[in-house]
Amino acid sequence: MTRIRSKLLSAFSLAASLAYSTNVMAADCTPSKWGAEDEIGSANLITAERVIAASKLVKQGKAHPLGIVIDPKMPAYPPRSMHLEVVQPGQQHGKSLEGAVAWPMIYNDDMAQLWFGIGPQLDGLGHMGEAGYFYNCNHTDDISDFSGLKKLGIHTVPPLVGRGVLIDMAKHFGVTSLEKGQGFSSQDIKAAADKQGVRIQEGDVVLFHTGWTDAKMNAEPDLWVSGEPGLTNEAGAFLASLNVMAVGSDTWGLGAVPPIPGDKFGYDHISLMKENGIFVLETMNTGGLAKEGVKEFLFVLGQPRVKGAVQMLVNPIALY
Amino acid sequence: MTRIRSKLLSAFSLAASLAYSTNVMAADCTPSKWGAEDEIGSANLITAERVIAASKLVKQGKAHPLGIVIDPKMPAYPPRSMHLEVVQPGQQHGKSLEGAVAWPMIYNDDMAQLWFGIGPQLDGLGHMGEAGYFYNCNHTDDISDFSGLKKLGIHTVPPLVGRGVLIDMAKHFGVTSLEKGQGFSSQDIKAAADKQGVRIQEGDVVLFHTGWTDAKMNAEPDLWVSGEPGLTNEAGAFLASLNVMAVGSDTWGLGAVPPIPGDKFGYDHISLMKENGIFVLETMNTGGLAKEGVKEFLFVLGQPRVKGAVQMLVNPIALY
Amino acid sequence: MTRIRSKLLSAFSLAASLAYSTNVMAADCTPSKWGAEDEIGSANLITAERVIAASKLVKQGKAHPLGIVIDPKMPAYPPRSMHLEVVQPGQQHGKSLEGAVAWPMIYNDDMAQLWFGIGPQLDGLGHMGEAGYFYNCNHTDDISDFSGLKKLGIHTVPPLVGRGVLIDMAKHFGVTSLEKGQGFSSQDIKAAADKQGVRIQEGDVVLFHTGWTDAKMNAEPDLWVSGEPGLTNEAGAFLASLNVMAVGSDTWGLGAVPPIPGDKFGYDHISLMKENGIFVLETMNTGGLAKEGVKEFLFVLGQPRVKGAVQMLVNPIALY
Amino acid sequence: MTRIRSKLLSAFSLAASLAYSTNVMAADCTPSKWGAEDEIGSANLITAERVIAASKLVKQGKAHPLGIVIDPKMPAYPPRSMHLEVVQPGQQHGKSLEGAVAWPMIYNDDMAQLWFGIGPQLDGLGHMGEAGYFYNCNHTDDISDFSGLKKLGIHTVPPLVGRGVLIDMAKHFGVTSLEKGQGFSSQDIKAAADKQGVRIQEGDVVLFHTGWTDAKMNAEPDLWVSGEPGLTNEAGAFLASLNVMAVGSDTWGLGAVPPIPGDKFGYDHISLMKENGIFVLETMNTGGLAKEGVKEFLFVLGQPRVKGAVQMLVNPIALY
Repeated sequence: MTRIRSKLLSAFSLAASLAYSTNVMAADCTPSKWGAEDEIGSANLITAERVIAASKLVKQGKAHPLGIVIDPKMPAYPPRSMHLEVVQPGQQHGKSLEGAVAWPMIYNDDMAQLWFGIGPQLDGLGHMGEAGYFYNCNHTDDISDFSGLKKLGIHTVPPLVGRGVLIDMAKHFGVTSLEKGQGFSSQDIKAAADKQGVRIQEGDVVLFHTGWTDAKMNAEPDLWVSGEPGLTNEAGAFLASLNVMAVGSDTWGLGAVPPIPGDKFGYDHISLMKENGIFVLETMNTGGLAKEGVKEFLFVLGQPRVKGAVQMLVNPIALY
Repeated sequence: MTRIRSKLLSAFSLAASLAYSTNVMAADCTPSKWGAEDEIGSANLITAERVIAASKLVKQGKAHPLGIVIDPKMPAYPPRSMHLEVVQPGQQHGKSLEGAVAWPMIYNDDMAQLWFGIGPQLDGLGHMGEAGYFYNCNHTDDISDFSGLKKLGIHTVPPLVGRGVLIDMAKHFGVTSLEKGQGFSSQDIKAAADKQGVRIQEGDVVLFHTGWTDAKMNAEPDLWVSGEPGLTNEAGAFLASLNVMAVGSDTWGLGAVPPIPGDKFGYDHISLMKENGIFVLETMNTGGLAKEGVKEFLFVLGQPRVKGAVQMLVNPIALY
Repeated sequence: MTRIRSKLLSAFSLAASLAYSTNVMAADCTPSKWGAEDEIGSANLITAERVIAASKLVKQGKAHPLGIVIDPKMPAYPPRSMHLEVVQPGQQHGKSLEGAVAWPMIYNDDMAQLWFGIGPQLDGLGHMGEAGYFYNCNHTDDISDFSGLKKLGIHTVPPLVGRGVLIDMAKHFGVTSLEKGQGFSSQDIKAAADKQGVRIQEGDVVLFHTGWTDAKMNAEPDLWVSGEPGLTNEAGAFLASLNVMAVGSDTWGLGAVPPIPGDKFGYDHISLMKENGIFVLETMNTGGLAKEGVKEFLFVLGQPRVKGAVQMLVNPIALY
Repeated sequence: MTRIRSKLLSAFSLAASLAYSTNVMAADCTPSKWGAEDEIGSANLITAERVIAASKLVKQGKAHPLGIVIDPKMPAYPPRSMHLEVVQPGQQHGKSLEGAVAWPMIYNDDMAQLWFGIGPQLDGLGHMGEAGYFYNCNHTDDISDFSGLKKLGIHTVPPLVGRGVLIDMAKHFGVTSLEKGQGFSSQDIKAAADKQGVRIQEGDVVLFHTGWTDAKMNAEPDLWVSGEPGLTNEAGAFLASLNVMAVGSDTWGLGAVPPIPGDKFGYDHISLMKENGIFVLETMNTGGLAKEGVKEFLFVLGQPRVKGAVQMLVNPIALY
């Protein structure tokens, strides 16, 4: 019997918006440096100069897909799942379309029931928050509508284009893959970057190769989803302080899980997304670039712009 | 009671594969010039030289999203539809995650029930065929599995990167939007290209601006889906003869609907996809480029690589 | 990145259960008269004597479906919706199953994406609550799991079998259909029951015919879902005091919407379900019985027992 | 690009209907004895006398659910599956509805993505056919619409009410459960019925207890779905010859799988459904009745009447 409720709720949502408009300066949130209305966060760092400069990183003429293949059967804890169906509407049991189109046309179509947070994904700024607030003092009561986010939806994210850098943490630690729960700090990142000749710049997309997904996702799916190596909370804050555009890794959640002693689970997302509007990229396909020793590239991400979606299946392209 | 059937069907599929392996030279299909095993068609045209050359088209440092916003409520004839739900697992009625993570974490997640053929989309080579066959003599009995295409799935498509060109047919005909059912031929395309100073080259992604979606999708959704301006069958064959990588438009189906007298509905897809392995892009967001008079650009498409999917929601990026 | 969270949340849920076990006597909830562990509420009223007595009401040998036809396109406010697809796995484009089963078998199968609260439905005791609590002091933190209710799931409801009575409120007020927002009180119910010769007894399933759905659902779908005639809050409490097994009507929500002055929206559900464990039936197909003047009947409801579901599409049968 | 196609296909469907109207006397199908327009088959056998007589079988006042609990995680071969989500629209992160309804209302709602052929189910007459035809010479081209069957939909089935009889084949063979692939013939059925004092009459719902589901579904799910004991093809034809209303069992598919030597897989469905309009019930919960030695009962089935559905999740009630 939600029918009428939804009408009442709409009215209520409005009331709520008003109510919360007085909260935007609450202690629990920090307004964005890009203004009270800003929804795109670090995408504001994209400039013509940076795009042109990044385009000059295309030297070998290679294009690498940063999205791994999304197998509907890939590991995912409940409740996340994906189902795909290939169907042939109007063509059941050999029914011909020739009567309709005057030639023996056949076609396949497909439908799916899925979560947008499976496999390689872009986390929108409305995905994770703290104490009621998401990026730029947006309160959940105001924006988290059941039928689609009212603000910070994935469709608001402009093309994320810029300089991408890869820091190979596995190589740095001399392993094929870091371990579950192994955290790396700002010192580790700086040491690895220096050794590998990578300089992180403002507006960059910083990707870390830990080896975790290549080593474990298919071989030990239960282990893969039960934890991961990644950023410490301090490393998350450090990267945020560099004003990068996005941070990603070849893990499902970026930060170390379980977190290192004293750290908070998933808090890297808060330092990056909620506090600084920096986008997070997960389950990136970094193995090929690491093997080739690619350090910097033109990063181009065009996510399907589903209105009101929280996150999205993606496949950013690295050009070098 | 499909349970056991599925096992039997698997066995049968194998038998079918063998059976059809003798059919690959059937009159109804032409083997690909890229070999009997080829699944990527015109993506074979991507070369380091072309990628590097295309990267030099980035002059103004601008990035334009070629995917329109996908509103779950956007027009779509049955059976295609999309539903999005923003949910908060484990956080019902204010249940706090603080006990689990030791900080007041909140998060939104999202799930959807959708068709991958809604809005801006990349048609895979397993989408449309003729008389039982898809691209490269792949018979539907062999590849069209209910749970995902066994060949020609969207996940097999590599990053489509190259030179993109825009031909503004609306400008050519001096209108805001071409009309429903208005077809344009190779002569029209050549005339418009010449007048607009565009030279189509091998390996290009050729996009046409008709004005149809900007003018009609929101204003007259029923009209928008009931037909469209587009290629004549002859124009489809002409473009295929130029060995381009992909052809797209700001319409839901590329070809004129209804087709011009003597033409076959949708047959442009056969000339391009089935006969030549050339990809088709639909409901592209060409308006902004047309307004700016952008003629050529670096085209970068990274589609979510869902294993076995027929087509995919996309948002290619035009860099210029 | 919910993967690991779900594990943490499980741990947390346990903690929460313990935490709340101390709350069961909170002022906000009243333990059930059937014991602290009871999940079936008024179904405890089913006795062999009552079932046998009710079976003797079958005199004309007629069976009437109390569930209306559920059209996937029937009115429903967002977010509720339903989609049905009839598919033919393994039979695409005329692919024959004969090779698999040695005879020309064909079959249709069907899938759906739906809400269990569409059309004729049984509300389970975990559907509506107040201030954190559902029936029998079950706190939402303890039972409302995303993947299925941990207690009070629809699968726990035994066959609801007993004496059904129909009170024709439309006839009582001399109209084809009561109006939107028209409430009827215990006095109205008693007057109508007396005039129509109906005596409500303990354990009965009491159905009201208002004429609303027959008159408005198809003719004025927007009006139909925007409100309805029904019980006043006082009438809900009155029916609860009679220890009936279930109360239903030919409306989508049982109570008057908008509520009469001074009443609370939907509070009838609290008096019946939360406070007394009495089941609620919605969008019942009462028209045929009202027309025939059927006053009492054998009521038999077997709902699909989906584990953890909140409510369920149903079609109770009235035998008389 | 199915948009316009769907319009063309509608036109085509009409053409097809006309085309096939000339086929109804084809050798491949037998018109129903209940007339060319009949869609309900053996439900025509329901008479007032039979319903009244069956109601007198309620002697102990007991009600038994013939539908097993449907666990979304229960075994099912691809592509069949089920997902359930319990959600709280408009109540994210503790958002209160009090502003909307003036009292601290909370509610759970649920949505699902499922196949109607999971667990206890009623097969409609449009589920299985032979050589293009379903019951009463309905050709698949005419009735199998992607969005819902145009004829023989589950919503057309009236309340199936009558005398139910249980024949305990496990007891007959002196086992807890029959074996996978073990078929039983008309002789076995007659012998068991005689020994157990059961006389099958016209219009009966005949249920067989094999012990298969109780013994194997949870203990050995892979074995359970890989086969089953059940009717031989000859037994299916025998039961059809008795003019019963429905035949069911505690197995997922009624007939023996794999079939006995010389039998056709699933052909029992053709003898019962296609040739005689007799309904099939699967995965029935017969264990409790078998244990009590219940031989006959009042059978009452009210399936959710989803328009155009092929089959349906059900929970028939046995009253005795």
